[in-house]
Amino acid sequence: MLRALELARRGLYTTDPNPRVGCVIARHGEIIAEGFHARAGEPHAERHALAAAGDRARGATAYVTLEPCSHTGRTGPCADALVAAGVARVVVAMEDPNPQVAGRGLRKLRDAGIEVEVGLQEQDARALNPGFIRRMGGQRPYIRIKAAASLDGRTAMASGESQWITGAAAREDVQRLRARSSAIITGIGTVLADRPSYTVRPEQWTRADYGSDWVRPPLRVILDRDLRTPVDVPVVTAEGECLIVGGEAHPERQSVLQAAGAEVIHLSASGSGIDLQALLAELARRECNEILVECGATLAGAFVQEGLFDELIVYLAPALLGTDARGLLALPLARMAEKIPLQWQDVRRVGDDLRLTLQPTASRLRPSALA
Amino acid sequence: MLRALELARRGLYTTDPNPRVGCVIARHGEIIAEGFHARAGEPHAERHALAAAGDRARGATAYVTLEPCSHTGRTGPCADALVAAGVARVVVAMEDPNPQVAGRGLRKLRDAGIEVEVGLQEQDARALNPGFIRRMGGQRPYIRIKAAASLDGRTAMASGESQWITGAAAREDVQRLRARSSAIITGIGTVLADRPSYTVRPEQWTRADYGSDWVRPPLRVILDRDLRTPVDVPVVTAEGECLIVGGEAHPERQSVLQAAGAEVIHLSASGSGIDLQALLAELARRECNEILVECGATLAGAFVQEGLFDELIVYLAPALLGTDARGLLALPLARMAEKIPLQWQDVRRVGDDLRLTLQPTASRLRPSALA
Repeated sequence: MLRALELARRGLYTTDPNPRVGCVIARHGEIIAEGFHARAGEPHAERHALAAAGDRARGATAYVTLEPCSHTGRTGPCADALVAAGVARVVVAMEDPNPQVAGRGLRKLRDAGIEVEVGLQEQDARALNPGFIRRMGGQRPYIRIKAAASLDGRTAMASGESQWITGAAAREDVQRLRARSSAIITGIGTVLADRPSYTVRPEQWTRADYGSDWVRPPLRVILDRDLRTPVDVPVVTAEGECLIVGGEAHPERQSVLQAAGAEVIHLSASGSGIDLQALLAELARRECNEILVECGATLAGAFVQEGLFDELIVYLAPALLGTDARGLLALPLARMAEKIPLQWQDVRRVGDDLRLTLQPTASRLRPSALA
Repeated sequence: MLRALELARRGLYTTDPNPRVGCVIARHGEIIAEGFHARAGEPHAERHALAAAGDRARGATAYVTLEPCSHTGRTGPCADALVAAGVARVVVAMEDPNPQVAGRGLRKLRDAGIEVEVGLQEQDARALNPGFIRRMGGQRPYIRIKAAASLDGRTAMASGESQWITGAAAREDVQRLRARSSAIITGIGTVLADRPSYTVRPEQWTRADYGSDWVRPPLRVILDRDLRTPVDVPVVTAEGECLIVGGEAHPERQSVLQAAGAEVIHLSASGSGIDLQALLAELARRECNEILVECGATLAGAFVQEGLFDELIVYLAPALLGTDARGLLALPLARMAEKIPLQWQDVRRVGDDLRLTLQPTASRLRPSALA
């Protein structure tokens, strides 16, 4: 199963919107075939492994990181294929959260007399597909908020000057976060101030942990109530799709942006900004699994304040910018009792910076109204 | 030598103003006697070990974490004692930075025909006595600035409310920092707002890494230009000494504070506060080795701005307080080019919090004008 998990990770940047899945077929404790799902529309991991195993699959054990599918997509159900191949035993790390599957694949296998085990390395398997699991659970996408700050929690000088707080290794690490995300959400303020492109350039990555040469560019989402996005900014013009989310009708601006290649939609604006719950529902509808929020203190603060995040990732630079500099997250808190508690998930060095990953504490996780 | 370093650490909270020193006497690779310096006025590590070894010291090897002394204090020079005991070989981790010794102890040993080696585990030995080394080098004491902050770099709410950002384990860790310090520096603002006592209560420590039952309370230093310190605050009334440093003469207030048991001195006030260089010279004169700075953003910012620190220790709590809350360090920086670069020295979990220890980068280390 450890090998199957390793194989699944090779699809980290490419399977979207499908889950990352790996499969190993073994006999007498020896691996005879392997496979992983590479991208949507192509064969599932089990299909690759069964093709490689051929007749040797008969009587063998298949290790799969996710329950084999029971429904007919572009290819027939994988559960049927395992039965047809005469596999004797199937070990599955986790059930498929997809309501179209949800145990039906396992039942098919068991009904065919195959021995089925579920739960081996389940936690690792779940960690492969946090967005797919969350979305299939009838909830919103999995949301990561990313920020770069100095030791004293500052993201920019008072003047707005912000390049570069963190080092090259941290910026490369952010590229990987982008590459595994279905969409990146930002705000019009950041687009105007920093002119980011949010592109993914795997050819520049120095650490070669990536097995495929194709990375799907994430959807770039700009929250822009009054459609102030210029048509010539990289976030609009770069390769890949750009979705501009407005709060009110501005037909003329909309036409101009559409002509520049952006898609424009409207969602109700609540007070200071776009309705984030509605936005996430829309992105879930578009099969977005993991979302990276890269924006300024106001919008990031709104996601945190509404409990709409699963990870807060802070790249902390070993430097001080002082109390005049801009803060990490705008949060209207007055009393210590209102503080937002988090819990550490991971702490590691990335080049000269420290990468801190935190989660909301269980009590603050708000599974949105989408369910 | 590793055992000698371990022994030396047993004096971590008690040898002040002397250095922490350990000694092991070995024959044929087997330890036959051990010793460490426990407190000023009591025998040095070598004396303890030689006494335990007795006649067996003849022809043996002595491992000492610091060069044996050559001058006569309360006891005769340890170098002479090693010669008299007939030790054949002395291995020393580092030379004594004390100008009264500075190689003379080693010379005495060599002149007596003893084989001498210097430099084994030198870095560990230096880490035992950062304050002693810095002070003996004709410089200032070794300065640690300690702060507790939320993930977004906030130390208190806008109202001043600050208890508790960090957890019990972090607060116990701070007690250990206090216990190893010769003095704690704070500002009048903190004294008035938080009424700290800065006492050390080893009987409450849960981790039993401490071998002696006596901890010297550190000197409490309050920077208080206008002598506004109340006579009934814990920092004045608690066990141990309190030194109030004023900037101007206030004879009446001074008498009242002296009657309450505090010592009051005056140092020239420069602009917003006390002349920090003069303060550190005064504390070095009082044989302070390590100093812990526990204060508000303004005073801590002044130490950082003047380059007068060796470690910045931040206990980072997994929580967010928002941009309205108070910042970590007041620093008048406007441009990114003015940012104060640091380097990571240590990162570790302390209970639910993260303890980040940073040093100034080499280029910013300013060895004060005391030399």
